Amino acid sequence: MSFLVLLRHGESQWNHENRFTGWVDVDLSAKGENEAQSAGKLIKKSGLIFQEVHTSILKRAIRTSWLVLEQIDQTYLEIKHSWRLNERHYGALQGLNKDETSEKYGPEQVFIWRRSYDIAPPPMPEPLYQNQLSEQRLKKLLVQDIPRTESLLMCQQRVLPYWEQTLAPALKQNQNLLVVAHGNSLRALIKLLDQIPDLKIAELNIPTGQPLVYEFDPKTIGPKLGPMKYSYLN
Amino acid sequence: MSFLVLLRHGESQWNHENRFTGWVDVDLSAKGENEAQSAGKLIKKSGLIFQEVHTSILKRAIRTSWLVLEQIDQTYLEIKHSWRLNERHYGALQGLNKDETSEKYGPEQVFIWRRSYDIAPPPMPEPLYQNQLSEQRLKKLLVQDIPRTESLLMCQQRVLPYWEQTLAPALKQNQNLLVVAHGNSLRALIKLLDQIPDLKIAELNIPTGQPLVYEFDPKTIGPKLGPMKYSYLN
Repeated sequence: MSFLVLLRHGESQWNHENRFTGWVDVDLSAKGENEAQSAGKLIKKSGLIFQEVHTSILKRAIRTSWLVLEQIDQTYLEIKHSWRLNERHYGALQGLNKDETSEKYGPEQVFIWRRSYDIAPPPMPEPLYQNQLSEQRLKKLLVQDIPRTESLLMCQQRVLPYWEQTLAPALKQNQNLLVVAHGNSLRALIKLLDQIPDLKIAELNIPTGQPLVYEFDPKTIGPKLGPMKYSYLN
Repeated sequence: MSFLVLLRHGESQWNHENRFTGWVDVDLSAKGENEAQSAGKLIKKSGLIFQEVHTSILKRAIRTSWLVLEQIDQTYLEIKHSWRLNERHYGALQGLNKDETSEKYGPEQVFIWRRSYDIAPPPMPEPLYQNQLSEQRLKKLLVQDIPRTESLLMCQQRVLPYWEQTLAPALKQNQNLLVVAHGNSLRALIKLLDQIPDLKIAELNIPTGQPLVYEFDPKTIGPKLGPMKYSYLN
Protein backbone atom coordinates (compact mmCIF):
# COMPACT_ATOMS: atom_id res chain seq x y z
CA MET A 1 0.00 0.00 0.00
CA SER A 2 1.02 3.59 -0.48
CA PHE A 3 -0.68 6.60 1.05
CA LEU A 4 -1.38 10.08 -0.20
CA VAL A 5 -2.36 12.63 2.43
CA LEU A 6 -3.89 15.85 1.10
CA LEU A 7 -3.96 18.81 3.44
CA ARG A 8 -5.28 22.31 2.85
CA HIS A 9 -3.19 24.96 4.62
CA GLY A 10 -4.56 26.51 7.82
CA GLU A 11 -6.41 29.83 7.82
CA SER A 12 -4.38 32.71 6.35
CA GLN A 13 -4.50 36.38 7.34
CA TRP A 14 -6.59 37.10 4.26
CA ASN A 15 -8.95 34.15 4.74
CA HIS A 16 -9.53 35.80 8.09
CA GLU A 17 -10.10 39.22 6.47
CA ASN A 18 -12.33 37.65 3.80
CA ARG A 19 -10.11 38.83 0.92
CA PHE A 20 -9.33 37.08 -2.38
CA THR A 21 -5.78 35.73 -2.01
CA GLY A 22 -4.77 33.57 -4.99
CA TRP A 23 -1.03 33.88 -5.64
CA VAL A 24 -0.45 36.64 -3.08
CA ASP A 25 2.00 35.27 -0.50
CA VAL A 26 -0.04 35.84 2.64
CA ASP A 27 1.06 34.20 5.89
CA LEU A 28 -0.95 31.96 8.24
CA SER A 29 -3.07 33.55 10.94
CA ALA A 30 -2.62 32.42 14.55
CA LYS A 31 -5.72 30.25 14.06
CA GLY A 32 -4.12 28.82 10.90
CA GLU A 33 -1.00 27.83 12.83
CA ASN A 34 -3.17 26.02 15.37
CA GLU A 35 -5.05 24.24 12.59
CA ALA A 36 -1.77 23.06 11.09
CA GLN A 37 -0.60 21.74 14.45
CA SER A 38 -3.91 19.94 15.01
CA ALA A 39 -3.61 18.35 11.57
CA GLY A 40 -0.10 17.24 12.53
CA LYS A 41 -1.41 15.62 15.72
CA LEU A 42 -4.03 13.69 13.73
CA ILE A 43 -1.37 12.45 11.30
CA LYS A 44 0.87 11.51 14.21
CA LYS A 45 -1.94 9.44 15.73
CA SER A 46 -2.30 7.63 12.39
CA GLY A 47 1.36 6.57 12.61
CA LEU A 48 1.99 7.41 8.93
CA ILE A 49 5.62 7.78 7.89
CA PHE A 50 6.21 9.82 4.74
CA GLN A 51 8.94 9.57 2.15
CA GLU A 52 8.05 12.79 0.32
CA VAL A 53 6.46 16.14 1.11
CA HIS A 54 5.13 18.45 -1.59
CA THR A 55 3.79 21.98 -1.24
CA SER A 56 3.10 25.03 -3.37
CA ILE A 57 5.57 27.92 -3.39
CA LEU A 58 3.28 29.93 -1.12
CA LYS A 59 4.26 30.37 2.49
CA ARG A 60 0.85 29.55 3.98
CA ALA A 61 1.25 26.02 2.57
CA ILE A 62 4.98 25.77 3.29
CA ARG A 63 4.60 26.88 6.91
CA THR A 64 1.68 24.48 7.35
CA SER A 65 3.95 21.65 6.17
CA TRP A 66 6.67 22.74 8.61
CA LEU A 67 4.21 22.75 11.53
CA VAL A 68 2.97 19.28 10.55
CA LEU A 69 6.52 17.90 10.20
CA GLU A 70 7.36 19.21 13.66
CA GLN A 71 4.33 17.49 15.15
CA ILE A 72 5.05 14.15 13.47
CA ASP A 73 8.80 14.40 14.13
CA GLN A 74 9.70 13.98 10.46
CA THR A 75 11.54 17.29 10.06
CA TYR A 76 14.35 15.45 8.25
CA LEU A 77 12.19 15.16 5.10
CA GLU A 78 13.10 17.48 2.24
CA ILE A 79 10.12 19.46 0.98
CA LYS A 80 9.52 19.95 -2.73
CA HIS A 81 7.81 23.18 -3.75
CA SER A 82 5.93 23.57 -7.02
CA TRP A 83 3.99 26.51 -8.45
CA ARG A 84 1.68 23.86 -9.95
CA LEU A 85 0.24 23.30 -6.47
CA ASN A 86 -0.39 27.03 -5.95
CA GLU A 87 -3.86 28.34 -5.25
CA ARG A 88 -5.92 29.32 -8.28
CA HIS A 89 -4.88 32.79 -9.48
CA TYR A 90 -7.72 35.24 -8.82
CA GLY A 91 -6.62 37.90 -11.33
CA ALA A 92 -7.87 41.42 -10.65
CA LEU A 93 -9.78 40.23 -7.59
CA GLN A 94 -6.61 39.43 -5.59
CA GLY A 95 -6.46 41.59 -2.49
CA LEU A 96 -10.11 42.69 -2.68
CA ASN A 97 -12.50 42.06 0.16
CA LYS A 98 -15.18 39.60 -0.93
CA ASP A 99 -18.07 41.74 0.32
CA GLU A 100 -16.76 44.86 -1.40
CA THR A 101 -16.29 42.86 -4.59
CA SER A 102 -19.93 41.77 -4.38
CA GLU A 103 -21.04 45.37 -3.99
CA LYS A 104 -18.90 46.47 -6.92
CA TYR A 105 -19.61 43.71 -9.42
CA GLY A 106 -22.86 42.30 -8.02
CA PRO A 107 -23.14 39.05 -6.06
CA GLU A 108 -24.22 37.01 -9.11
CA GLN A 109 -21.08 37.94 -11.03
CA VAL A 110 -18.86 37.14 -8.02
CA PHE A 111 -20.65 33.85 -7.55
CA ILE A 112 -19.90 32.99 -11.19
CA TRP A 113 -16.21 33.82 -10.79
CA ARG A 114 -15.93 31.81 -7.60
CA ARG A 115 -17.96 28.79 -8.49
CA SER A 116 -17.99 28.36 -12.26
CA TYR A 117 -15.72 25.81 -13.86
CA ASP A 118 -14.28 27.66 -16.82
CA ILE A 119 -14.91 31.38 -16.31
CA ALA A 120 -11.90 33.33 -15.04
CA PRO A 121 -12.05 36.62 -13.11
CA PRO A 122 -10.76 39.72 -14.97
CA PRO A 123 -6.97 39.56 -15.49
CA MET A 124 -4.56 41.48 -13.25
CA PRO A 125 -3.99 45.05 -14.44
CA GLU A 126 -0.64 45.35 -16.24
CA PRO A 127 1.29 47.19 -13.46
CA LEU A 128 0.30 44.55 -10.89
CA TYR A 129 1.24 41.81 -13.34
CA GLN A 130 4.67 43.38 -13.84
CA ASN A 131 5.11 43.54 -10.05
CA GLN A 132 4.22 39.89 -9.86
CA LEU A 133 6.79 39.01 -12.54
CA SER A 134 9.50 40.70 -10.52
CA GLU A 135 8.84 38.67 -7.35
CA GLN A 136 11.93 36.77 -6.25
CA ARG A 137 9.98 33.58 -5.50
CA LEU A 138 8.74 33.40 -9.11
CA LYS A 139 12.20 33.86 -10.66
CA LYS A 140 12.56 30.17 -11.48
CA LEU A 141 9.25 29.98 -13.38
CA LEU A 142 8.85 30.41 -17.11
CA VAL A 143 7.06 33.67 -17.90
CA GLN A 144 4.36 31.79 -19.81
CA ASP A 145 3.60 29.79 -16.64
CA ILE A 146 2.82 32.88 -14.56
CA PRO A 147 -0.91 33.57 -14.89
CA ARG A 148 -2.76 36.88 -15.08
CA THR A 149 -5.92 35.10 -13.93
CA GLU A 150 -7.27 31.54 -13.82
CA SER A 151 -10.56 29.71 -14.02
CA LEU A 152 -10.89 26.52 -12.01
CA LEU A 153 -10.32 24.64 -15.29
CA MET A 154 -7.06 26.50 -15.97
CA CYS A 155 -5.89 25.78 -12.40
CA GLN A 156 -6.76 22.12 -12.87
CA GLN A 157 -4.87 21.94 -16.15
CA ARG A 158 -1.62 23.07 -14.56
CA VAL A 159 -2.04 20.84 -11.49
CA LEU A 160 -2.51 17.65 -13.52
CA PRO A 161 1.05 17.37 -14.89
CA TYR A 162 2.25 17.40 -11.28
CA TRP A 163 0.03 14.42 -10.52
CA GLU A 164 1.11 12.56 -13.64
CA GLN A 165 4.82 13.32 -13.58
CA THR A 166 5.59 13.59 -9.88
CA LEU A 167 2.95 12.33 -7.45
CA ALA A 168 1.58 9.23 -9.23
CA PRO A 169 5.05 7.84 -10.11
CA ALA A 170 6.12 8.21 -6.45
CA LEU A 171 2.97 6.43 -5.24
CA LYS A 172 3.68 3.64 -7.72
CA GLN A 173 7.06 3.24 -6.08
CA ASN A 174 5.45 2.66 -2.70
CA GLN A 175 6.23 6.12 -1.36
CA ASN A 176 3.88 7.78 1.12
CA LEU A 177 3.26 11.41 0.20
CA LEU A 178 2.12 14.44 2.13
CA VAL A 179 0.77 17.19 -0.14
CA VAL A 180 0.03 20.54 1.49
CA ALA A 181 -1.75 22.85 -0.89
CA HIS A 182 -4.81 25.05 -1.44
CA GLY A 183 -8.57 24.84 -1.86
CA ASN A 184 -8.49 24.86 -5.65
CA SER A 185 -5.28 22.96 -6.38
CA LEU A 186 -6.56 20.21 -4.06
CA ARG A 187 -9.94 20.31 -5.82
CA ALA A 188 -8.10 19.54 -9.04
CA LEU A 189 -6.46 16.46 -7.51
CA ILE A 190 -9.63 15.25 -5.83
CA LYS A 191 -11.62 15.76 -9.03
CA LEU A 192 -9.24 13.38 -10.75
CA LEU A 193 -9.02 10.83 -7.94
CA ASP A 194 -12.74 10.68 -7.25
CA GLN A 195 -13.77 11.24 -10.88
CA ILE A 196 -16.03 14.15 -10.05
CA PRO A 197 -17.81 15.72 -13.05
CA ASP A 198 -16.82 19.24 -14.18
CA LEU A 199 -20.05 20.83 -13.02
CA LYS A 200 -19.90 19.28 -9.55
CA ILE A 201 -16.33 20.11 -8.57
CA ALA A 202 -16.84 23.78 -7.65
CA GLU A 203 -19.34 22.69 -4.98
CA LEU A 204 -16.75 20.58 -3.20
CA ASN A 205 -15.51 22.36 -0.10
CA ILE A 206 -12.22 21.21 1.35
CA PRO A 207 -11.83 22.01 5.04
CA THR A 208 -8.59 23.65 6.27
CA GLY A 209 -6.34 21.61 8.53
CA GLN A 210 -8.15 18.29 7.95
CA PRO A 211 -5.87 15.59 6.52
CA LEU A 212 -7.56 13.56 3.77
CA VAL A 213 -5.93 10.15 3.32
CA TYR A 214 -6.03 8.15 0.08
CA GLU A 215 -4.81 4.59 0.06
CA PHE A 216 -3.42 3.08 -3.15
CA ASP A 217 -2.39 -0.28 -4.40
CA PRO A 218 0.76 0.80 -6.26
CA LYS A 219 0.22 -1.92 -8.88
CA THR A 220 -3.05 -0.43 -10.08
CA ILE A 221 -2.36 3.32 -10.21
CA GLY A 222 -3.04 4.40 -13.74
CA PRO A 223 -4.72 7.15 -15.72
CA LYS A 224 -8.17 5.69 -15.07
CA LEU A 225 -7.58 3.95 -11.77
CA GLY A 226 -8.21 5.89 -8.64
CA PRO A 227 -7.41 5.10 -5.05
CA MET A 228 -8.84 2.08 -3.26
CA LYS A 229 -10.39 4.13 -0.52
CA TYR A 230 -10.08 7.40 1.30
CA SER A 231 -11.12 9.07 4.51
CA TYR A 232 -10.53 12.11 6.66
CA LEU A 233 -8.36 11.46 9.69
CA ASN A 234 -10.04 12.05 13.01
CA MET B 1 30.40 37.87 -6.29
CA SER B 2 28.79 34.96 -4.52
CA PHE B 3 28.12 34.72 -0.82
CA LEU B 4 28.27 31.87 1.66
CA VAL B 5 26.55 32.45 4.98
CA LEU B 6 27.43 30.00 7.74
CA LEU B 7 25.10 29.85 10.71
CA ARG B 8 25.30 27.68 13.81
CA HIS B 9 21.85 26.60 15.03
CA GLY B 10 20.40 28.34 18.08
CA GLU B 11 20.66 26.86 21.57
CA SER B 12 19.17 23.39 21.88
CA GLN B 13 17.48 21.84 24.90
CA TRP B 14 20.63 19.85 25.61
CA ASN B 15 23.01 22.80 25.12
CA HIS B 16 20.86 24.34 27.82
CA GLU B 17 21.15 21.25 30.03
CA ASN B 18 24.90 21.04 29.32
CA ARG B 19 24.66 17.53 27.82
CA PHE B 20 26.65 16.03 24.94
CA THR B 21 24.30 15.98 21.95
CA GLY B 22 26.08 14.89 18.76
CA TRP B 23 23.67 13.04 16.47
CA VAL B 24 20.80 12.95 18.98
CA ASP B 25 17.89 14.85 17.43
CA VAL B 26 17.27 17.40 20.17
CA ASP B 27 15.02 20.38 19.48
CA LEU B 28 15.77 24.09 19.91
CA SER B 29 15.15 25.69 23.29
CA ALA B 30 12.99 28.84 23.46
CA LYS B 31 16.24 30.82 23.64
CA GLY B 32 17.47 28.97 20.53
CA GLU B 33 14.34 29.95 18.61
CA ASN B 34 14.96 33.59 19.53
CA GLU B 35 18.59 33.32 18.44
CA ALA B 36 17.50 31.93 15.07
CA GLN B 37 15.02 34.78 14.60
CA SER B 38 17.67 37.36 15.52
CA ALA B 39 20.05 35.81 13.01
CA GLY B 40 17.28 36.05 10.41
CA LYS B 41 16.83 39.75 11.19
CA LEU B 42 20.55 40.38 10.69
CA ILE B 43 20.49 38.59 7.35
CA LYS B 44 17.39 40.52 6.34
CA LYS B 45 19.19 43.80 7.10
CA SER B 46 22.07 42.67 4.86
CA GLY B 47 19.62 42.30 1.95
CA LEU B 48 21.13 38.96 0.89
CA ILE B 49 19.01 36.83 -1.42
CA PHE B 50 19.83 33.12 -1.44
CA GLN B 51 19.50 30.56 -4.19
CA GLU B 52 20.23 27.53 -1.98
CA VAL B 53 19.82 26.51 1.65
CA HIS B 54 21.70 23.57 3.17
CA THR B 55 21.32 22.05 6.62
CA SER B 56 22.15 18.86 8.47
CA ILE B 57 19.43 16.24 9.01
CA LEU B 58 19.07 17.34 12.64
CA LYS B 59 16.01 19.32 13.61
CA ARG B 60 17.85 21.98 15.62
CA ALA B 61 19.55 23.07 12.37
CA ILE B 62 16.48 22.53 10.18
CA ARG B 63 14.19 24.54 12.46
CA THR B 64 16.82 27.29 12.68
CA SER B 65 16.80 27.49 8.88
CA TRP B 66 12.98 27.67 8.86
CA LEU B 67 12.99 30.53 11.37
CA VAL B 68 15.61 32.39 9.31
CA LEU B 69 13.69 31.87 6.04
CA GLU B 70 10.56 33.23 7.68
CA GLN B 71 12.39 36.36 8.82
CA ILE B 72 13.98 37.00 5.42
CA ASP B 73 10.76 36.12 3.55
CA GLN B 74 12.49 33.49 1.41
CA THR B 75 10.33 30.54 2.51
CA TYR B 76 9.99 29.49 -1.15
CA LEU B 77 13.56 28.12 -1.14
CA GLU B 78 13.90 24.36 -1.03
CA ILE B 79 16.18 23.18 1.76
CA LYS B 80 18.72 20.43 1.16
CA HIS B 81 19.55 18.21 4.16
CA SER B 82 22.76 16.26 4.44
CA TRP B 83 24.11 14.03 7.20
CA ARG B 84 27.55 15.34 6.19
CA LEU B 85 26.64 18.65 7.89
CA ASN B 86 25.60 16.89 11.11
CA GLU B 87 27.27 17.68 14.40
CA ARG B 88 30.29 15.56 15.31
CA HIS B 89 29.15 12.22 16.71
CA TYR B 90 30.00 12.07 20.41
CA GLY B 91 29.91 8.27 20.77
CA ALA B 92 29.25 6.96 24.26
CA LEU B 93 29.14 10.49 25.65
CA GLN B 94 25.89 11.40 23.84
CA GLY B 95 23.20 12.21 26.37
CA LEU B 96 25.60 12.57 29.31
CA ASN B 97 25.81 15.76 31.30
CA LYS B 98 29.21 17.38 30.81
CA ASP B 99 29.85 17.88 34.53
CA GLU B 100 28.94 14.27 35.36
CA THR B 101 31.20 13.09 32.54
CA SER B 102 34.04 15.11 34.05
CA GLU B 103 33.45 13.50 37.43
CA LYS B 104 33.33 10.03 35.89
CA TYR B 105 36.28 10.19 33.47
CA GLY B 106 38.23 13.13 34.93
CA PRO B 107 38.27 16.64 33.49
CA GLU B 108 41.57 16.10 31.61
CA GLN B 109 40.16 13.15 29.69
CA VAL B 110 36.99 15.03 28.83
CA PHE B 111 39.05 18.03 27.74
CA ILE B 112 41.02 15.72 25.40
CA TRP B 113 37.82 14.29 23.87
CA ARG B 114 36.34 17.73 23.41
CA ARG B 115 39.33 19.63 22.17
CA SER B 116 41.79 17.21 20.57
CA TYR B 117 41.92 16.94 16.82
CA ASP B 118 42.09 13.21 16.21
CA ILE B 119 41.03 11.47 19.42
CA ALA B 120 37.44 10.19 19.42
CA PRO B 121 35.31 9.55 22.53
CA PRO B 122 34.50 5.88 23.31
CA PRO B 123 32.13 4.39 20.70
CA MET B 124 28.41 4.02 21.37
CA PRO B 125 27.55 0.77 23.16
CA GLU B 126 26.12 -1.79 20.70
CA PRO B 127 22.44 -1.57 21.81
CA LEU B 128 22.46 2.21 21.42
CA TYR B 129 24.16 1.88 18.04
CA GLN B 130 21.45 -0.56 16.90
CA ASN B 131 18.78 1.89 18.07
CA GLN B 132 20.50 4.60 16.08
CA LEU B 133 20.56 2.42 12.94
CA SER B 134 16.80 1.93 13.20
CA GLU B 135 16.01 5.66 13.28
CA GLN B 136 13.73 6.66 10.43
CA ARG B 137 15.70 9.80 9.62
CA LEU B 138 18.86 7.74 8.98
CA LYS B 139 17.14 5.23 6.65
CA LYS B 140 18.57 6.85 3.51
CA LEU B 141 22.18 6.67 4.74
CA LEU B 142 24.62 3.88 3.98
CA VAL B 143 25.34 1.85 7.12
CA GLN B 144 29.06 2.54 6.75
CA ASP B 145 28.34 6.27 6.91
CA ILE B 146 26.62 6.07 10.30
CA PRO B 147 29.31 6.61 12.95
CA ARG B 148 29.71 5.00 16.37
CA THR B 149 31.87 7.95 17.43
CA GLU B 150 33.92 10.67 15.75
CA SER B 151 37.03 12.73 16.38
CA LEU B 152 37.05 16.26 15.02
CA LEU B 153 39.25 14.92 12.20
CA MET B 154 36.70 12.23 11.30
CA CYS B 155 33.93 14.82 11.31
CA GLN B 156 36.01 17.06 9.08
CA GLN B 157 36.70 14.24 6.65
CA ARG B 158 33.01 13.62 6.02
CA VAL B 159 32.16 17.33 5.77
CA LEU B 160 34.76 18.04 3.08
CA PRO B 161 33.10 16.09 0.22
CA TYR B 162 30.03 18.25 0.79
CA TRP B 163 32.14 21.37 0.27
CA GLU B 164 33.86 19.96 -2.79
CA GLN B 165 30.88 18.33 -4.50
CA THR B 166 27.97 20.55 -3.47
CA LEU B 167 28.81 23.92 -1.92
CA ALA B 168 31.90 25.03 -3.89
CA PRO B 169 30.35 24.16 -7.31
CA ALA B 170 27.24 26.18 -6.43
CA LEU B 171 29.35 29.17 -5.36
CA LYS B 172 31.26 28.92 -8.62
CA GLN B 173 27.93 29.24 -10.41
CA ASN B 174 27.22 32.53 -8.66
CA GLN B 175 24.73 31.08 -6.21
CA ASN B 176 24.39 32.57 -2.74
CA LEU B 177 24.23 29.84 -0.09
CA LEU B 178 22.90 29.70 3.44
CA VAL B 179 24.37 26.79 5.42
CA VAL B 180 22.84 26.10 8.82
CA ALA B 181 24.84 23.52 10.73
CA HIS B 182 26.70 22.75 13.96
CA GLY B 183 29.75 23.80 15.95
CA ASN B 184 31.99 21.06 14.60
CA SER B 185 30.72 20.69 11.03
CA LEU B 186 31.12 24.47 10.66
CA ARG B 187 34.60 24.24 12.18
CA ALA B 188 35.47 21.83 9.38
CA LEU B 189 34.35 24.32 6.73
CA ILE B 190 36.03 27.29 8.39
CA LYS B 191 39.27 25.32 8.85
CA LEU B 192 39.34 24.82 5.10
CA LEU B 193 38.27 28.34 4.12
CA ASP B 194 40.61 30.12 6.53
CA GLN B 195 43.40 27.52 6.28
CA ILE B 196 43.58 27.04 10.03
CA PRO B 197 46.21 24.49 11.21
CA ASP B 198 45.03 21.17 12.71
CA LEU B 199 46.13 22.05 16.22
CA LYS B 200 44.41 25.44 16.23
CA ILE B 201 40.97 24.47 14.97
CA ALA B 202 39.59 23.00 18.22
CA GLU B 203 40.14 26.39 19.88
CA LEU B 204 37.87 28.14 17.42
CA ASN B 205 34.52 28.84 19.02
CA ILE B 206 31.61 29.52 16.71
CA PRO B 207 28.83 31.53 18.34
CA THR B 208 25.22 30.33 17.96
CA GLY B 209 22.86 32.47 15.94
CA GLN B 210 25.58 34.74 14.46
CA PRO B 211 25.66 34.66 10.65
CA LEU B 212 29.22 34.51 9.28
CA VAL B 213 29.40 35.80 5.71
CA TYR B 214 32.08 34.77 3.22
CA GLU B 215 32.37 36.59 -0.07
CA PHE B 216 33.81 34.80 -3.11
CA ASP B 217 34.89 35.70 -6.57
CA PRO B 218 33.39 32.68 -8.38
CA LYS B 219 36.25 32.70 -10.90
CA THR B 220 38.88 31.97 -8.26
CA ILE B 221 37.25 29.30 -6.08
CA GLY B 222 39.56 26.33 -6.14
CA PRO B 223 41.07 23.72 -3.86
CA LYS B 224 43.66 26.21 -2.57
CA LEU B 225 41.80 29.46 -3.00
CA GLY B 226 39.71 30.67 -0.14
CA PRO B 227 37.20 33.46 0.06
CA MET B 228 38.13 37.09 -0.58
CA LYS B 229 36.90 38.27 2.79
CA TYR B 230 34.53 37.39 5.57
CA SER B 231 32.79 38.98 8.51
CA TYR B 232 30.07 38.43 11.06
CA LEU B 233 26.87 40.29 10.33
CA ASN B 234 25.89 42.84 12.94
